[in-house]
Amino acid sequence: MNYNILDLMNNKQYSLVKQLVEDMEEADLAELFNQLVDHDQATKLFRLLPKETAAEVFSYMDPESQEMIIGVLTDNELRHILDDLYMDDYVDLMEEMPANVVKRLMQNSTPQNRKLINQYLKYPDDSAGSLMTNEYVYFKSGITIQQGFDIIRQNGVDKETIYTGYVTSARKELLGVVTVREMLLARPDVLIDDIMEQNPIYVHTHDDQEEIAKMFSRYDMLAMPVVDSERRIVGIITIDDAVDVIQDENTEDFEKMAGMMPSDESYLRTSVLTLAKHRIPWLMILMISAMVTGAMLEHYETAFVGIPILVAFIPQIMDTGGNCGSQASTMIIRGLALDEIKLRDFFRVLWKEIRVALLCGAALSVVNFARIMIQYHDVQVAIVVSGTLVLTVCIAKSLGCVLPMLAKKLHLDPAIMASPLITTITDAFSIYVYFNFALWYLGSRL
Amino acid sequence: MNYNILDLMNNKQYSLVKQLVEDMEEADLAELFNQLVDHDQATKLFRLLPKETAAEVFSYMDPESQEMIIGVLTDNELRHILDDLYMDDYVDLMEEMPANVVKRLMQNSTPQNRKLINQYLKYPDDSAGSLMTNEYVYFKSGITIQQGFDIIRQNGVDKETIYTGYVTSARKELLGVVTVREMLLARPDVLIDDIMEQNPIYVHTHDDQEEIAKMFSRYDMLAMPVVDSERRIVGIITIDDAVDVIQDENTEDFEKMAGMMPSDESYLRTSVLTLAKHRIPWLMILMISAMVTGAMLEHYETAFVGIPILVAFIPQIMDTGGNCGSQASTMIIRGLALDEIKLRDFFRVLWKEIRVALLCGAALSVVNFARIMIQYHDVQVAIVVSGTLVLTVCIAKSLGCVLPMLAKKLHLDPAIMASPLITTITDAFSIYVYFNFALWYLGSRL
Repeated sequence: MNYNILDLMNNKQYSLVKQLVEDMEEADLAELFNQLVDHDQATKLFRLLPKETAAEVFSYMDPESQEMIIGVLTDNELRHILDDLYMDDYVDLMEEMPANVVKRLMQNSTPQNRKLINQYLKYPDDSAGSLMTNEYVYFKSGITIQQGFDIIRQNGVDKETIYTGYVTSARKELLGVVTVREMLLARPDVLIDDIMEQNPIYVHTHDDQEEIAKMFSRYDMLAMPVVDSERRIVGIITIDDAVDVIQDENTEDFEKMAGMMPSDESYLRTSVLTLAKHRIPWLMILMISAMVTGAMLEHYETAFVGIPILVAFIPQIMDTGGNCGSQASTMIIRGLALDEIKLRDFFRVLWKEIRVALLCGAALSVVNFARIMIQYHDVQVAIVVSGTLVLTVCIAKSLGCVLPMLAKKLHLDPAIMASPLITTITDAFSIYVYFNFALWYLGSRL
Repeated sequence: MNYNILDLMNNKQYSLVKQLVEDMEEADLAELFNQLVDHDQATKLFRLLPKETAAEVFSYMDPESQEMIIGVLTDNELRHILDDLYMDDYVDLMEEMPANVVKRLMQNSTPQNRKLINQYLKYPDDSAGSLMTNEYVYFKSGITIQQGFDIIRQNGVDKETIYTGYVTSARKELLGVVTVREMLLARPDVLIDDIMEQNPIYVHTHDDQEEIAKMFSRYDMLAMPVVDSERRIVGIITIDDAVDVIQDENTEDFEKMAGMMPSDESYLRTSVLTLAKHRIPWLMILMISAMVTGAMLEHYETAFVGIPILVAFIPQIMDTGGNCGSQASTMIIRGLALDEIKLRDFFRVLWKEIRVALLCGAALSVVNFARIMIQYHDVQVAIVVSGTLVLTVCIAKSLGCVLPMLAKKLHLDPAIMASPLITTITDAFSIYVYFNFALWYLGSRL
């Protein structure tokens, strides 16, 4: 479908294009712009969009495409688009654009929007304030359902959602929440106050977006009211933004767990320099930590010069330790993130991991023992390597559950206690165990 | 709040409890049951719930709590709960319960529900059919908005969502979709056919849940119609279930990327034996693969027996390679999962990773070079180790982007090409580079 439109554009069959884009989803149209490289074609296509959907298509676009489109629009066209944007998309746009573009956008904003944007931009990143929009339906306390529907019919067209209405006092304090579902299923002359939920769930402007996303998922909500310190409603967050937060927070955890500093930008849009900057700190810390293990190895020179075959098992012991630690820490970090594991479960989790470790360690060392016997016919080395393996697995799995939970207890992000760090710590332990075991048990052969 | 209720239960202040639970969210009440261990108390508390919310609280509970509650309810009470469940929760319950409980549940289901359940249970796990529910609002083509609202008022109370209505032909073919928002904002005497979206987004019963969740997120939908092979609507999937799928799919990726077979159960509910079974296969594969690296090391015995200090740098080179590969593969796997990276970006991604690798490698090897010079005053070893490090970083980062994209190309899950596998492969490469470089450059010292 996308290719067709590009072909039609190339063949200047604009009236056909105009017809086609009317039936397309806004998100798909935005995707089309993200793929277009020719500015002229993008401009022409944008002008072919139906007036009422142009702003929505625009809000779905990548920042690059948005900047390109802004660059070619007249001030008049730009004002139309800006007026049709929801406030949360408006603020996002301001955050993404370079300073000179922001200046032009501000010049073309209404004084009221300018004021609101400046206010919204002050909320911390990742806070409810930075996610919310002010396009919500509210009812003054005391009106009937029929009056409520009239308000929705008059104002609903500009609201991000109409399905949840917020009942407020004269001072805009949040008194209750009512859904259109409840309004439709009750008699029109009933007072909204009588059917509203009187203890609604709400968040404060400075609350963290991760916790808010969890509340959406826990309570199956479609919209969340945001209140200020005096419980006055200042905005709402809708489920589609909560879903984006869930994905962003997951991406952040993936990045942290792989030893990277998290980034807000998508991979392809991040510069090589930024990527490197996000990756080098942990690589450096871990490389320097690995020097400890290396320094320990120096001390065991007599062992591996005397029995060189011992060196051959280092990769296997180190990798297995890393993999076991990675498995345990991933399960625990994920469980903590989803609130499936709580700190009070500590001993239960540790005891579970130790038993899992013994099973895994046993399975691995049996295979390993057999392999060493078959290949080297050296029962002593087989015992040292297999024994070390069992202990390494136990250490790795214990660290993999203890460290993330310790981080949580210390109010750090458990995700930093993931595979890379645990591998490095486990390495030191396992090399220590391996060579001390070897020196003690094989000492007579040196 | 939760502790209060437990205390009040212990003090037999049931009327106060009854009052308190009326204002509580269903999800919080379910959580309370999950924490209760005393069956008698759980039974009493369940009987104190308002009739209209009992089924919803029940549907939020853990399977353990559900089984406990089913065990103590009379057949009559059970029938009431089952009748009030949405079909998707009903089917989930049947999937989670042991055979003897399922038998009792089936005996207490209406013949109609029994038939439906048997039909739903046939859909593959992770398919649209296994997620959908049949409680949706549909309109026969040709009615007015006013008639539509009458249908919602008559039937809406049992529907999982009323905000999206599905317009169908006499044969239940999906003709269009209309939202309550559009209905409220148009005149009541307008025909629904005239305002409905005529090319609605829909999925088929056998479509994969991961793709469906992505569509929810892409198109900001609240509900998705599910059709059969003849485009007849058979159910809908609601956004709350799509959010759960997103979290499940993320958990699955975390698990796969840490070398585990994914599990549907939460960590604490999975038995030690199952956890071990999910972890051992990859540990075994990776341990056996690491033997290759070990076997290679044997060949370089002359090198490390002659210059034992070389062994001390093995952990650092192996760990750095693993960490670099892990960083790259995580970014690529995540980008592919979110559709931010496409297969056509292959060369762009590879070129980016190579440049990032050169920057990271340079930073690491400068620090490493300085450290070796300070500690050992051995410029030759410093050159070998630092040179190997740069090459290892390049290999690791290249593998970290090539392998996940190759997996995607081969229609495998890119998540298996994550840290553990890439670490093992990188290890072999880096040990090969390291000792060959050493043998060639330091050969005269042996």
